[in-house]
Amino acid sequence: MALIVQKYGGTSVADAECIRKVARRVVDTHEAGNQVVVCVSAMAGETNALVDLARELGGARPPAREYDVLVSTGEQKTIALLAMAIQGLGHKARSFTGAQMAMRTDGSHTRARIESIDSERLLRVLADGAIAVIAGFQGVDADGNITTLGRGGSDTSAVAVACALGADRCEIYTDVDGVHTADPNLVDGARKLDHVSYNEMLEMASLGAKVLQIRAVKIAMRYGLPIHVRSTFGSDEGTWVVREEDVMERLVVSGVTYNRDEAKIRVKGVKDEPGVAGQIFTPLAASGIVVDMIVQNLSSDGTTDVTFTVPRGDYARALEIAEKEVPRTGATTVEGDEHIAKVSIVGLGMQDHAGVATRMFGVLASESINIQMITTSEIKISVVIEEKYTELAVRALHAAFIEDGAAEPTAE
Amino acid sequence: MALIVQKYGGTSVADAECIRKVARRVVDTHEAGNQVVVCVSAMAGETNALVDLARELGGARPPAREYDVLVSTGEQKTIALLAMAIQGLGHKARSFTGAQMAMRTDGSHTRARIESIDSERLLRVLADGAIAVIAGFQGVDADGNITTLGRGGSDTSAVAVACALGADRCEIYTDVDGVHTADPNLVDGARKLDHVSYNEMLEMASLGAKVLQIRAVKIAMRYGLPIHVRSTFGSDEGTWVVREEDVMERLVVSGVTYNRDEAKIRVKGVKDEPGVAGQIFTPLAASGIVVDMIVQNLSSDGTTDVTFTVPRGDYARALEIAEKEVPRTGATTVEGDEHIAKVSIVGLGMQDHAGVATRMFGVLASESINIQMITTSEIKISVVIEEKYTELAVRALHAAFIEDGAAEPTAE
Repeated sequence: MALIVQKYGGTSVADAECIRKVARRVVDTHEAGNQVVVCVSAMAGETNALVDLARELGGARPPAREYDVLVSTGEQKTIALLAMAIQGLGHKARSFTGAQMAMRTDGSHTRARIESIDSERLLRVLADGAIAVIAGFQGVDADGNITTLGRGGSDTSAVAVACALGADRCEIYTDVDGVHTADPNLVDGARKLDHVSYNEMLEMASLGAKVLQIRAVKIAMRYGLPIHVRSTFGSDEGTWVVREEDVMERLVVSGVTYNRDEAKIRVKGVKDEPGVAGQIFTPLAASGIVVDMIVQNLSSDGTTDVTFTVPRGDYARALEIAEKEVPRTGATTVEGDEHIAKVSIVGLGMQDHAGVATRMFGVLASESINIQMITTSEIKISVVIEEKYTELAVRALHAAFIEDGAAEPTAE
Repeated sequence: MALIVQKYGGTSVADAECIRKVARRVVDTHEAGNQVVVCVSAMAGETNALVDLARELGGARPPAREYDVLVSTGEQKTIALLAMAIQGLGHKARSFTGAQMAMRTDGSHTRARIESIDSERLLRVLADGAIAVIAGFQGVDADGNITTLGRGGSDTSAVAVACALGADRCEIYTDVDGVHTADPNLVDGARKLDHVSYNEMLEMASLGAKVLQIRAVKIAMRYGLPIHVRSTFGSDEGTWVVREEDVMERLVVSGVTYNRDEAKIRVKGVKDEPGVAGQIFTPLAASGIVVDMIVQNLSSDGTTDVTFTVPRGDYARALEIAEKEVPRTGATTVEGDEHIAKVSIVGLGMQDHAGVATRMFGVLASESINIQMITTSEIKISVVIEEKYTELAVRALHAAFIEDGAAEPTAE
């Protein structure tokens, strides 16, 4: 008998029919002799409808405490309906709001961090032979205020509860069948990965392979909790997200990802002095703008160019801030470009193989794609290119590193 | 400075525009120097939509605990939105779910009874200069389960909180401008009452003048809390529901009400022995059927006829049960009639004036309306008549007792 936490996203519980199917699946798992905790999101569309209402009455920035009271009703609806559906199949079920399961968070409304979970209450229900149905995304602070974990927080809730309960695994049900080597909508040859390490998943998640929230992966990694990402609409195995040592095939490149949601800003002719970079990035951080890639190059004239990327939605604001800092940094000009894409290759095997970067640059060069920025980590290489080449770059890299049986590059 | 509890029903908070208007009204009351607690229902239509979902997934009788988790989201949405709107007008506001204000109830899901309220939490918020926005209709039991008070429970929540806080008054905002002497849709001459006593209101509420929940009136009566029933859509005074001694004009008849939602069952030739009535009504009560009027008459042959009314929705079931009891009671026949109406006159002044009943029967006789059953109380006389005469009877009684300046009948 295993203890399994299952998480179903909004599209999996979009309507009564979907909820009935989820109930069937939960009951099947229970009847197979497992203890089951089910974590659910709001029904698809529900959260957006609530957010629209909040904007209508609370303006562009609705008061955060009340916003959380409002949007948390979405998951509360789903837990009640799913518990009903499970009972309708003849099994015991009991729903829990964030407050009821004592999912204690800090008081940061709309982006709260989990502090503790009262696992005793859930374990008692499981010991009683019942299925626990818990609301994802929501918690409660020390003063009894309702909090939410931010968008996609349901993955985090599920994984956190699984870790607190010492569950054997956490199953994340979604509308895709697992984690792919590339976006299947873009690359015909993209294939599902059977296993991927936490670290690879972190690099892929942050790069846009949106099957699993990065916060959830981080928590699972800390506790060594196996996550199984799979489709709600079938019974095939999906992708297991596990510890590095449990990944069988250490692919040099296990994924090619892209992100078209960034913009680039270049500050030219900055004085090459200590603290100058801080003068650019401190006001950006103060404005809540998250800088992704940063590249700095010394010019021959003793000044330096600093180039960085920001979310495209923050582009105009970031450009304005950078221009304001020109006098203090001695910069000559500030340039921006919204029409860029970040393309990355990710793979555990890179750690053991030299020359992967060189090969990546060669593939892009052979397609005449110019590289504007480069950053690298242990298991990832990212380049910024002109946006219009996104598909071409992803397909070429996928063909070279994955489809051509290039798990083990011959010689570099 | 007064402490005022205001309650707004579903039609008053039906959409964003309505909620903004309510916020304005609440803020006006606050700016006039009062402390304000606002109790709200779910947005009109919301509860019905949730109940439909519950039926779809939980069947005709959805599990009560989960039903309460589901429907309580309706009020939770409204409190968040109203608190946002009030803050948008520059005032402090804080929402409270049933659990957050510790509205403790027993564990009877879907029809819970209030046991206690933690008035300290609300008073602290008021002392801080904020407006407290509380969810009507919902509470929490000793184990932290969400409970609901049953349909119309928001009136009860508002009045209970007002009593717990020692509020100066409770204002019930609704889509009518007060309590009328008769249904204005039926009787042109119907007029709004300025004052009505708790007892009159109780008799009217139970008879169908659905402006105020009977449970709320009972609680207000126990604490002597003045209730002001008035329209959301204007600033005119409505009707004050107050202690008998605070009613200025003691009308002989202050209201003419009717109810077309009952059916009549007559059990004929019952043995006139002790315990026979119990044999008919015990199985009805066991089936949860609420019997309203009961009339028993001894026949000349030593047997007795028992006639009673039940809600029309329970008619078929009640008839079946009554027929099953025929052998044990020695009854000869059971007859039923769905096409009846109960018409009542209610008034404090009846206590002091003889002959009101005689006059009522005379008015009906002059319209050739036959009376099938009669029951009387201190301040009410009800008759059952053929359904098709409902309007005629109500208009004739209203004209005779109210429109003809008959507050004080000349001589009886």
